[in-house]
Amino acid sequence: MPFIDLKNDLPGIRSAMAFRPETAEPLSALAEILLRDDEGLSRAERELIGTYVSYLNDCFYCHHSHGEIACIYLDGDRQVVDQVRKDFTKADISPKLKALLHVAGKVQRSGKAVTAEDIQLAKDTGASDRDIHDTVLIAAAFCMYNRYVDGLGTYAPTDMSSYPLRAMQIVENGYGSHIFKKPQPGAAK
Amino acid sequence: MPFIDLKNDLPGIRSAMAFRPETAEPLSALAEILLRDDEGLSRAERELIGTYVSYLNDCFYCHHSHGEIACIYLDGDRQVVDQVRKDFTKADISPKLKALLHVAGKVQRSGKAVTAEDIQLAKDTGASDRDIHDTVLIAAAFCMYNRYVDGLGTYAPTDMSSYPLRAMQIVENGYGSHIFKKPQPGAAK
Repeated sequence: MPFIDLKNDLPGIRSAMAFRPETAEPLSALAEILLRDDEGLSRAERELIGTYVSYLNDCFYCHHSHGEIACIYLDGDRQVVDQVRKDFTKADISPKLKALLHVAGKVQRSGKAVTAEDIQLAKDTGASDRDIHDTVLIAAAFCMYNRYVDGLGTYAPTDMSSYPLRAMQIVENGYGSHIFKKPQPGAAK
Repeated sequence: MPFIDLKNDLPGIRSAMAFRPETAEPLSALAEILLRDDEGLSRAERELIGTYVSYLNDCFYCHHSHGEIACIYLDGDRQVVDQVRKDFTKADISPKLKALLHVAGKVQRSGKAVTAEDIQLAKDTGASDRDIHDTVLIAAAFCMYNRYVDGLGTYAPTDMSSYPLRAMQIVENGYGSHIFKKPQPGAAK
């Protein structure tokens, strides 16, 4: 049960967002840009970084939610997602993504844990400055989202069938904050 | 020197935001709502929570920047800001803010570190559900901002006279993302 009365029975971050729509707006907009930008990193890569950081932060709701989204972008290849969680160095992913996941893992511990060598390693595999920027900010953002979800004790469904359904909605419609809001009376949607 | 070429010589988060204005927009909007909302927690309380979490994350740029902003809201009472950093239990602040700083410190460690008892303690001092929500999200958001600033190795001025000047600009104009953007040619401002 959530630590405060969120006045709804939505799962995870959606319940916190519905409680405070003013902050839901920029939180959703940030996710939309960071996780669905098609320049540089692919959507699958972006979601894998988010899944990995959420797993390191032990955020059940987030690592399952974003793991399912990554899975859809990877044409159902669940093995890659599971392997990224457990030990990404053995996953069937590019050397570039491995180097970026290494950076993301450092960011998860602390911004100060990142070294010039970690970044150089990523550059050596072909990562652009923008790829590195986005990796750092995705990892940092998940350190926020994960803490928001668990720091309020939000409800994480244990019925695992709900995650793929929700993942498909995100893949199709995005993280736009409209999906967190109740429809207005008389509104077309 | 920053780990990537941010193409500007701005300090701290401003350099990362100028590099990627698309993400600067929601990041600034989030700070504006969380740190300058006048309902519930005061602006001084919000900035003190941000300063404390940034100090725990050892983010030099952020804890000095937000410490100076808090100081302005506290009519120049630097002692309170310093004491919140060192040991907030001994600071001249309300029992409510002490209980909320305790929650913020837990969030800084991990969302999962927060317990129902921590929250109950805050409620017992008069904290509303909204105060608790905002405290958790401010603490979580600074775990993002701090990692963004240090994970990219951005430049933090060691000339401490720059912090109060910048703080006054924020107090007067807010965190609106317009202040991070270069003025458009021909624009009035």
